[in-house]
Amino acid sequence: MPEVNASSAAPAARRSPLRIAIFGFGTVGSSVARILAESQPPQLKLTHIFNRGVARKKADWVGGDVVWSEDAEAVLASDADVIVELAGGLDPAGAWVRKALTAGKSVVTANKKLIAYYGVELERLAAANGGHLKYGAAVAGGIPVIPGIEQGLAGDSIERMEGILNGTCNFILSKMEEGADYAEVLKDAQAKGYAEADPTEDVGGFDARAKLSILMRLALRVEVDPEQIVPKAITDVAAIDFSYARDLGCTIRQIARADKTSGAVAASVGPTLVDLRSPLAWSRGTENMVVLSGKYGGDVVFSGHGAGGHPTAVAVVSDLLALAAGSRRVELPSAKAVIGSEMELPHYIRFLVYDRPGIVAEITLALAREQINIRAIVQKAGYPANALPFVVTVEPCKSSTLKRALEGIRCLDCMIAPPLDLQMLE
Amino acid sequence: MPEVNASSAAPAARRSPLRIAIFGFGTVGSSVARILAESQPPQLKLTHIFNRGVARKKADWVGGDVVWSEDAEAVLASDADVIVELAGGLDPAGAWVRKALTAGKSVVTANKKLIAYYGVELERLAAANGGHLKYGAAVAGGIPVIPGIEQGLAGDSIERMEGILNGTCNFILSKMEEGADYAEVLKDAQAKGYAEADPTEDVGGFDARAKLSILMRLALRVEVDPEQIVPKAITDVAAIDFSYARDLGCTIRQIARADKTSGAVAASVGPTLVDLRSPLAWSRGTENMVVLSGKYGGDVVFSGHGAGGHPTAVAVVSDLLALAAGSRRVELPSAKAVIGSEMELPHYIRFLVYDRPGIVAEITLALAREQINIRAIVQKAGYPANALPFVVTVEPCKSSTLKRALEGIRCLDCMIAPPLDLQMLE
Repeated sequence: MPEVNASSAAPAARRSPLRIAIFGFGTVGSSVARILAESQPPQLKLTHIFNRGVARKKADWVGGDVVWSEDAEAVLASDADVIVELAGGLDPAGAWVRKALTAGKSVVTANKKLIAYYGVELERLAAANGGHLKYGAAVAGGIPVIPGIEQGLAGDSIERMEGILNGTCNFILSKMEEGADYAEVLKDAQAKGYAEADPTEDVGGFDARAKLSILMRLALRVEVDPEQIVPKAITDVAAIDFSYARDLGCTIRQIARADKTSGAVAASVGPTLVDLRSPLAWSRGTENMVVLSGKYGGDVVFSGHGAGGHPTAVAVVSDLLALAAGSRRVELPSAKAVIGSEMELPHYIRFLVYDRPGIVAEITLALAREQINIRAIVQKAGYPANALPFVVTVEPCKSSTLKRALEGIRCLDCMIAPPLDLQMLE
Repeated sequence: MPEVNASSAAPAARRSPLRIAIFGFGTVGSSVARILAESQPPQLKLTHIFNRGVARKKADWVGGDVVWSEDAEAVLASDADVIVELAGGLDPAGAWVRKALTAGKSVVTANKKLIAYYGVELERLAAANGGHLKYGAAVAGGIPVIPGIEQGLAGDSIERMEGILNGTCNFILSKMEEGADYAEVLKDAQAKGYAEADPTEDVGGFDARAKLSILMRLALRVEVDPEQIVPKAITDVAAIDFSYARDLGCTIRQIARADKTSGAVAASVGPTLVDLRSPLAWSRGTENMVVLSGKYGGDVVFSGHGAGGHPTAVAVVSDLLALAAGSRRVELPSAKAVIGSEMELPHYIRFLVYDRPGIVAEITLALAREQINIRAIVQKAGYPANALPFVVTVEPCKSSTLKRALEGIRCLDCMIAPPLDLQMLE
């Protein structure tokens, strides 16, 4: 029986080293191997590296006794105690993880998608077979949000969370805040390796949604189907929106947010106006940030590098050291929940119109019909009458109510583009 | 044998509930009892409350089967599995903790002084007797810095840390930043319960020093004698310093800092100029903040409520839940070290002089003799010539070198008060 999984009188830490197999030798995988090679923790021993076409990956700074393999089944059947899954995606990573856990091995993974969709099932599988599943690297990379929640905030009752969980979006939006153009900055992010060739997963909000679902289970203790959260892409945000946001004392960030203060569960992911004095506005470049609001402890903020090889590898190696020390997850009881509620937040609505008399009257009337109160109307000078942007902000209201009002408004003959509707955090 | 201490096949979590005795039913102790009463975690059972003159403490919302006692020895000899020590100070708290650990019980404590001075010894005592010692509440109350370091950053090599670790000082300095007077704001802090009648422990930097020593052991992995760190009190900082700091793009915070980037260990506690754009400047009121800089993961920031009954109680209850789950400390190997180095930082020096020709020449000459480079000289108009404040900032230099230069300068006949010398963080 692999040592890590045995439950006997001696703590696992004393039966080290744990034998480690890395699945996926890309940026994160090679950073994990690099940290193990440099810091040489006596309780961990890298024994296997699996990668497709592994020959081109071989690095001579990795210990000579490490087995390099492109045969996943052979590595899964080896004497490795822990599988470090860094391939990502649901398939075949999910099959490998299930097979390892079924064999009583432990798994450390950075795979947010797998954990968001199948985390509960995989944790049960681990427990049933005497192994452990750890995924500190799946959310916010090098920032210890998951250990912080499990080990340091388990005593609180967390009711609300807001996070900047996608470094690519934060890089793009914080560059746009400084005046860069979306297309240019996306190209720059792609060149720097911060964005994929197809950026949909990031800019569309799907990556942040998976991470939000994981944090909702641990922090809010609700198990939700990630697909229930409909993300809003950052692609519709334009330079003019940063200019108007600044006039309102705000900037724009991709915010993942969940709330169960009213008992019902609400969640959203999308570009959002945040107060310039809020911690969320401080987050720049590829940084991540998470703000948790507890019933007893108030707000706790975590921030740092949420992605990249080394920060993510720190989370992986920390999970391995915790396994070796016999540290156990503090199980936070969670229950299935549906997203049955909307947030009642103020909104920012930016219109782009062909100017003519009566537009403001028509818009405000449509909002009034839905009992939506206007907070401010802002129109900056210097724009052409044939493509005039202006902004209306409204008092807290449900997104669905506002959506109804905007469906009428977008049909007005003066509308050049559909209105852009963003939540505002207060 | 108490269940928590047994090492057997079944994880401790399955042999719950852990029987809990609270020592000290003040603000934090009653918050711990309140959270346990409200959230009723099935794995924890409050069985004893010890306090001197306990009769006046009895509260009817605490379960009827809890034993209230003013006999510490009797509670230590009871069947409680875990002693929650919230009395504070070295004595008699230290004796209770040693007795409990020697008996194989586990201890959860918020006692920073005890852990700073005797943490290593007490951890060994716990391990030798099969118990556990947890002190997540000893530093930064409700912010999970200690679990974050132990469970989420163990894989990194942390080389530097900066923290705002004392809520009282942060309350006072952030109010002075807004224009309040030191004496007034201290009185306000005392009225609000943020400061003691004798505030020396806080404003003198002794409290922050104890917390810094604990974090140095966990994050930098060096065991230092807290007394080796000579703190600088915040009491010499005046309104004029906030005004000059702002002109330099800075504000003033009590910063606890430690560094081993050059191999040697340096540490300091005292009022420090921090850049207005730095996270440390965002921390207001009684908030705490810790910034850890890792070799691999870069900067990680934690912030939140560092003190107060409920936030501190969250850390205590989280430690209890971790014990019940069988979570083990990830032992971070540390070694004895002496503070053998000084930080080479830029400094802010504020002079208060009786104006006459030649003062700047004399001061700059004295600095030049020690090879200290001047960065800026700032003198604001509008002050009287018989009590003229002005500021010199200097390029990074050792505190001891600067001290030598200032010893000559302070003897100049024009000096109304000794110069105020503050480090500047960059």
